[in-house]
This record gives sequence, C-alpha cells and structure tokens, in this order.
Amino acid sequence: MAIDTRRPKEIRAEIRRGVLRGVTAGLAPGSVQANLAVLPREHAYDFLLFCQRNPRPCPLLEVTDVGSVEPTAVAPGADLRTDLPRYRIYKDGELAEELSDVTPYWRDDLVAFLLGCSFTFEWALLDAGIRLWHIEHGKNVAMWRTSVECRPAGRFHGPMVVSMRPIASEQLAKAITVTARFPSAHGAPIHIGDPAGLGITDLSRPDWGDPQTFGVGDVPVFWACGVTPQAVALASKPPFMITHSPGHMFITDLPNAALSVL
Amino acid sequence: MAIDTRRPKEIRAEIRRGVLRGVTAGLAPGSVQANLAVLPREHAYDFLLFCQRNPRPCPLLEVTDVGSVEPTAVAPGADLRTDLPRYRIYKDGELAEELSDVTPYWRDDLVAFLLGCSFTFEWALLDAGIRLWHIEHGKNVAMWRTSVECRPAGRFHGPMVVSMRPIASEQLAKAITVTARFPSAHGAPIHIGDPAGLGITDLSRPDWGDPQTFGVGDVPVFWACGVTPQAVALASKPPFMITHSPGHMFITDLPNAALSVL
Repeated sequence: MAIDTRRPKEIRAEIRRGVLRGVTAGLAPGSVQANLAVLPREHAYDFLLFCQRNPRPCPLLEVTDVGSVEPTAVAPGADLRTDLPRYRIYKDGELAEELSDVTPYWRDDLVAFLLGCSFTFEWALLDAGIRLWHIEHGKNVAMWRTSVECRPAGRFHGPMVVSMRPIASEQLAKAITVTARFPSAHGAPIHIGDPAGLGITDLSRPDWGDPQTFGVGDVPVFWACGVTPQAVALASKPPFMITHSPGHMFITDLPNAALSVL
Repeated sequence: MAIDTRRPKEIRAEIRRGVLRGVTAGLAPGSVQANLAVLPREHAYDFLLFCQRNPRPCPLLEVTDVGSVEPTAVAPGADLRTDLPRYRIYKDGELAEELSDVTPYWRDDLVAFLLGCSFTFEWALLDAGIRLWHIEHGKNVAMWRTSVECRPAGRFHGPMVVSMRPIASEQLAKAITVTARFPSAHGAPIHIGDPAGLGITDLSRPDWGDPQTFGVGDVPVFWACGVTPQAVALASKPPFMITHSPGHMFITDLPNAALSVL
C-alpha cells in the first residue's frame, strides 16, 4: 500500500463520506491518532478523574464540551459522529451494534474523550532506529490484563492492560528515553523484564494480539495500553457508551512530534 | 535559618499541631509542595476539565474523592483540613476569612485539588546550576496576567498568569530542557524574550511579586504560573472555595525528582 501523504483533514473528509472504511494504521503518517470513548455527562466526572489518576494507560488528548461533536483543540472542524471509520455502541457494557456513523445515537448529554495511542510512540521508536518485531512481521502487539490495579475513581476501577514489545538489550536505554518524551502517548515503559512482576505467567499466550518472537538478547518491555480505559469503562457496565472499533482510530491534526515534552 | 531536613510527614504533624504556622519555602527541601483549591462537587467537573485543558498553568498532582480529606496518592495519612499552615475561605469569590484549620468548614461534598508548584522547577533549575536572581536576592518572582486566554471549561475561564525569571543567555537552553522534564510543575517556558508576545507592556511593573533585575545578556523567560487556577476559579465567583494562603503550601511525600518524566 502506498503511503497516504494527504493531510488529516482530507482523510477525515473521505472517512466522513464513507470512501475510507478500514483501519487507520498507515493513514496520515506523522499525525497523532486517538482512541475514542463517549459517555453521558452523568458518568463523565468519574471517567475524567479516572484518566487523571491513571495517566499512563489513559493519556487524555481532548475532552469535548457536553453535547459537542467537535474536538476543537486537536481537530477543529471535525465531527466525532462521522469522522471515524467504524464505531461500537455499548449498552449496559454489552456490544449492541457496530456502525460507521453514530449520528442517530448522538445525544445532548454526551462527552467525548480522545486518548493517546501507541501509534505515536511506535513512530518515535522506529524514528529512533529501534526495531519492532510485530511491525516488521505484520503482526499485532501482544497485550495482557495485569495484576496491577488502576487507581479507582467513582464507578470506574479495574486492572491495567499492557502491551509488550521485545527490545534488543543494546537498544533498551534508547527505547525508554524516547518513549518517556511522550507522556501523552503512554510515556516510558511501566515494566521491563520478568513478566511475573505484572502477574503475567506465560509470554507466549497474550490475552489480546499476537505472540511475539524474541531474538537473542531481546528483553520484554511493557507499556501501559490504551485498551485499559475502554476495558475499565465497560467493566462498570455503563448504560450507554460509544467507542471506536479496534484499529479504527480518530486522526487528529496534531503532528506526533507536538506531543513530545522534550 | 537552618535547613529543615525532617521528613514531610513530621513537618505536616508540626503544622497540624500549630507549631509551624509560617510560609513553607525551605521546609522539607527536595519534597514536592502543592497549591490547594477546594470546591464543591457541583463545580468539580468544570474545574477538573479546566485543569485538563490547561495543564501548563494547572498541573494536577492529586484530586481527592468527594468528601475525603486525605490525598492518598501524594501523602497517605495527611489531613487537608489541618496540614497546611494557613488557608483562605472564599464566599462568592470574595475573601471571607483566613485561618489555620478549616475543619469547621469541611463538608461531605467537597473535592480537593492539589496542583504542582514552581518550587519544584526552581529546585531543578538551581540543581542544574542556573542562577535565579530573585532567590539570590530574597525577592519574589515577577508575575503578570497575560493576553493569552486559557481554554475555558464550563463556568471557568480567564487569562493565563505567568511568572518571569531573567535567565543568562548561555544558560537558556539548559533552563528550557531542565524544566521541560517537569510537566507536573508547569514544564517548559511558555514564552521566551519579547514580553509583548504575552501582552505585557512593562517588565518593570509586575501585577504581583517583585520587579527583577536583568544582568547583561539576560533574557526574560516566562513560565505558566500556579496563580492561574485560583485566579480563574475566583473570577467565576463560586459560592464556596477553600485555598491555601499565598506561600503556605501543602507539603507532599513525593520527592521533586519523582515528577521528572525523563
């Protein structure tokens, strides 16, 4: 597939018109992509507080005004009801429907949360010359539910989910410092080495994604994962919630480098 | 004054007993100190969102559970009603009382916000060998209300307040990178050089604090200031709000270095 070098706004317009309906990986390379979670105002305080208390798995990029469909800070003019290629509707924590336009479901009391995504820090790792096995082999990362509890907030609580990438030991220091510069995209690893420290017993059997292959001298490195906020929100069975479908992210106007703190 | 090397917990106990009643500068050196803002739950969502949208002036360290007096993440066992040396009570945005124990005013619907403070990044600057005129001369920094509007959230809106420190041009790069490592303590400067860019017309007349003296080659460097959240909250005239008195901060258990992202 040729790299799509158009600007995020043009790509979002094609998504809105239904021309693009697939996963967003590789679209608008260099632009920040985001996870979406939409909840009624009634549950928005608890979820906002949950994100504030757990910034590694839940790095907030944007929270819309109540009822607004426009993420003014990260993509002015965008419409969160139509500008993602695929959405999921959850009712009482159960998947009710999957669709490409949530306009019929929008309500005046909804608040949209956009959260940083691993695409940004993987870009930073690749840019720094760090090899990522799953990208070289066209696989997904490996993800686990850990024994580390997030700090609860109101109705929301649950374990942190992590993603794991094998990193060559000679590239370990660089992988840590490079990702630490991006706290809005999960930041530095939360754990390096022995998976038992996170309650993970078998590295060959991830809870989600694909098992990874380790080269000689590779070390397992664990980053907080954006699956956490959705998993935690759904576990509390909110009456109504909208999310993106896995891999079908929201493309913002922000360049990845804009998220670097240093 | 001799440096007080006791642990934060012991110092907070003396504050609670009323033995220490003065400003907290110089107490528990190396520990993070925090600004306090307490609001009813009714206004907590808007204030939390305001902080999320304006992280440079309003870096959140901790938000308590509704009604709780204990900041469990940054100072387990502490009591926010008694462990600061001096508080201010505001009613409808007006100062109503200044006192050393707010137990009589505590309510089940209150939420306490602790926000990062410039002491942390000044420690980082000094530690990196950067000279700060106001500290060498026992003065306060200079602060201004700027023409930069914070991003509003619900009832809260207003201009960003900045502090300014003259920095030697040969130390400028280091001053920027050193403070960038501490996003939870205002992070990197928001502006360097010509004050007109912030709508400041006269560097010799700050809105708060003391005028600074510039050496040859010194450049004015502006950081977002923790005065912003209180000024913004009070401008919206909330019926009830508790804050620390200026300089009388909350001393957390966190070492300053713990806030460094890199």
